Parts: sequence; structure tokens; C-alpha cells
Amino acid sequence: MENVKVIYFPLKGMAEGIRLILAHNGQEFEDVRIPHEEWPAMKPNTPFGQLPILEINGKQYAQTSAIVRYLGRKYGLGGNNVDEDFEIDQNMEFFNDLRSKGSALFYEKDEKRKAALREDLQKNYYPTALAKLNDIIAQNNGHLALGRLTWADFMFAGIYDSMKYIMQIPDIDEKYPMLVELQQKVLSLPRVKEFCDRAPKSDF
Amino acid sequence: MENVKVIYFPLKGMAEGIRLILAHNGQEFEDVRIPHEEWPAMKPNTPFGQLPILEINGKQYAQTSAIVRYLGRKYGLGGNNVDEDFEIDQNMEFFNDLRSKGSALFYEKDEKRKAALREDLQKNYYPTALAKLNDIIAQNNGHLALGRLTWADFMFAGIYDSMKYIMQIPDIDEKYPMLVELQQKVLSLPRVKEFCDRAPKSDF
Repeated sequence: MENVKVIYFPLKGMAEGIRLILAHNGQEFEDVRIPHEEWPAMKPNTPFGQLPILEINGKQYAQTSAIVRYLGRKYGLGGNNVDEDFEIDQNMEFFNDLRSKGSALFYEKDEKRKAALREDLQKNYYPTALAKLNDIIAQNNGHLALGRLTWADFMFAGIYDSMKYIMQIPDIDEKYPMLVELQQKVLSLPRVKEFCDRAPKSDF
Repeated sequence: MENVKVIYFPLKGMAEGIRLILAHNGQEFEDVRIPHEEWPAMKPNTPFGQLPILEINGKQYAQTSAIVRYLGRKYGLGGNNVDEDFEIDQNMEFFNDLRSKGSALFYEKDEKRKAALREDLQKNYYPTALAKLNDIIAQNNGHLALGRLTWADFMFAGIYDSMKYIMQIPDIDEKYPMLVELQQKVLSLPRVKEFCDRAPKSDF
């Protein structure tokens, strides 16, 4: 990899996992942050009408989990065999499901409806799902899978702030402490920390 | 693999892709179909409180895409390298996104709200996304990726009927003909056809 760009909005969101795994592996990249007002003109020229995009020597890669898995396997942060890869994918898919339940919340424009939807998730879904996620991380030595650092941890650490912003679960860090612990573990990796210290600031 | 079970409801739904890829590869399996009324008692003893589950010699595997990817790679229906695996994953993730937009519809209990949500998706999201999916399949020689049969095709073929039922897009097969063509291509594979002919019937 020589000429690498990560193209996204001025947010962590879906791109931060890509940025973090590149940074951890010492890969220099151009951190392109598109102002929202420029997006409509750009959208038709992207592979799926979506960001983030990873660009390597002009070739474009889309779809966040696919990208982070790809980079992870390239960098030796995947499984050591197909069975181990499955373990990562299984836990990642569970996490992505949990996370994407929040997307409906994010895009809901009717404020009353949004509040009702959030209450329903907070009552009937999130507590069990977050407790399960907390257990998974506890059972995996503070990681999302395989009891060690994999690409899934970068995906998780990159998106955790956005997830919290969307879910708005009071005391999530106190109730499910393994989540923030895993995020902080990734953010403390020396080259990740160095990247975050000099990156433009955004809350999520 | 010796003792293999696929455990799901009496539906195609999220399990059919697993059943089809096993059938295509000549793997005998017990096709366990749990009546809905038995599910609440069983749920707490499943890895994620969800079905489908694949069981191989007593070991349980969960999360549909992770399972089908795993079986695909085992059976030589993945990519030939990490870059090819990425191409499959990227297109699969796009398809899963498209498909999961429908889940909110499926679970919405308020009929008025459900109709409004469906109309919004039918107006603002599905046409572009389905046209894109149709293009992807056309550009890939009638497959979801790599211009050849991969595990992603089994995933797609297994879930297409459920997807149509949830989306309720009039004339979807006529408007986006590559979709049903891909489904039929998979369902015509000799061992897949043999499995479907003797499997319990369900509409989706």
C-alpha cells in the first residue's frame, strides 16, 4: 500500500475503525473529510452512494466491515484459520446487528416517534444485548473475539462513541464496563493514540 | 463434518442460505424446524438468543452471514485470496444493508406506521438500491461477486423470497430481473433442487 486515502465526513462514525487500524499498522493515509454540503455532488460517483471509502493506489473499497476485515487479514489481525475467522465474524455480526438497531433511531425524523422507538429498544432489546456483548468481551480477555486483538476490536473502538450517541443509554459505561474498557484499550495503542491526538476532533 | 444440524423456524428466512450451501455440497444434515410456540423456552439456551444455529458435532455456530461465509470458505466457494474475499464481503454487506432496511418494517406493529415506513423506503431508498444490486449481478456474470458462484449467491438465493415478502415492491422480478435470475440459477443446481423438492414447503 502506498497512496492510501480514507474518505468520509468530518466524523468518527463508520470510518474511524478504518482510520484506527491503518494508524495502528503504521500506514500513512490521507484523512479526507468531506463537508456535508459537498456530499450530494460527490455521491453519484461513489461505488454505493455511500461513505466511507478507502482508496488504495486509486482503487476504491467500500462497506465498512468488509474493509476493516480486509485490512485486518492483510495485517495479521484476523484469525489463524477459517474457524478462527468465523469466531471473529460471528461476534462482529452480533455487534453490527446491535449497532444497526440504532440506525432506525438515527434516521427517524418524527421526534415523538423517535422517543417511542428509543424507549422500546431501551426496554426490550438493549439491556439483554448489551449484557451479552459485555459477557463476550469479558470471556475474550477484554477483546471482541479469540481472546486477543483482532480487526473487530478496531471496528468496535471506532464506532463506540457514535453508538452511544444514538442509543442514549444512561450509565452505559458503568453498567457494561467491558465496552468502554475495550475501546480504551484500542485507543491506548501507541500509534492509535498518536493518530487520535493529531486528528481533527469530533464527538462521535 | 459428520453430525450436522440446521436449527430454525419452519421458514426459509435467515436459515435457507445455510441449508442450500450444505445441500449443494452434498452434506447431509438434520433440518430441525422449531415450532414458534417452543421458541421462548429454547431461546435462553442459544448462543445469542436467536436462530438460525448450525450445529456441527455438537458445536454451535450462530449469525447467518458468518456461517455461510464459513461454509463457503470451507467448500472452496470463497475468494482465492484476501482481495477476492473482500469483493464478496463488500457486495454481501451492501445486500445485507438493503435487506435489513426491511427488518424495521417487519417488526413494526403499528399498521399505519408500517405503511408510511414502507412508502418512504419504496420512494426514497429501494429503487436506487435495487437498481444498483441488479447492476452488480449483471456485471458479475449473473452472480453477486467475482463473476462466479460463491457463498454470497447461496445467501442471496435463500433469503430472496423473505425479502420480497417484507418489501412488497410491485413487479420487483420484472423491474430488476437479475435478482430472480440469480435466485433461480442457485435453485437449479442439481443437489439444491433435490433438497428443495423434498424440503417442507414455506412461502418465505
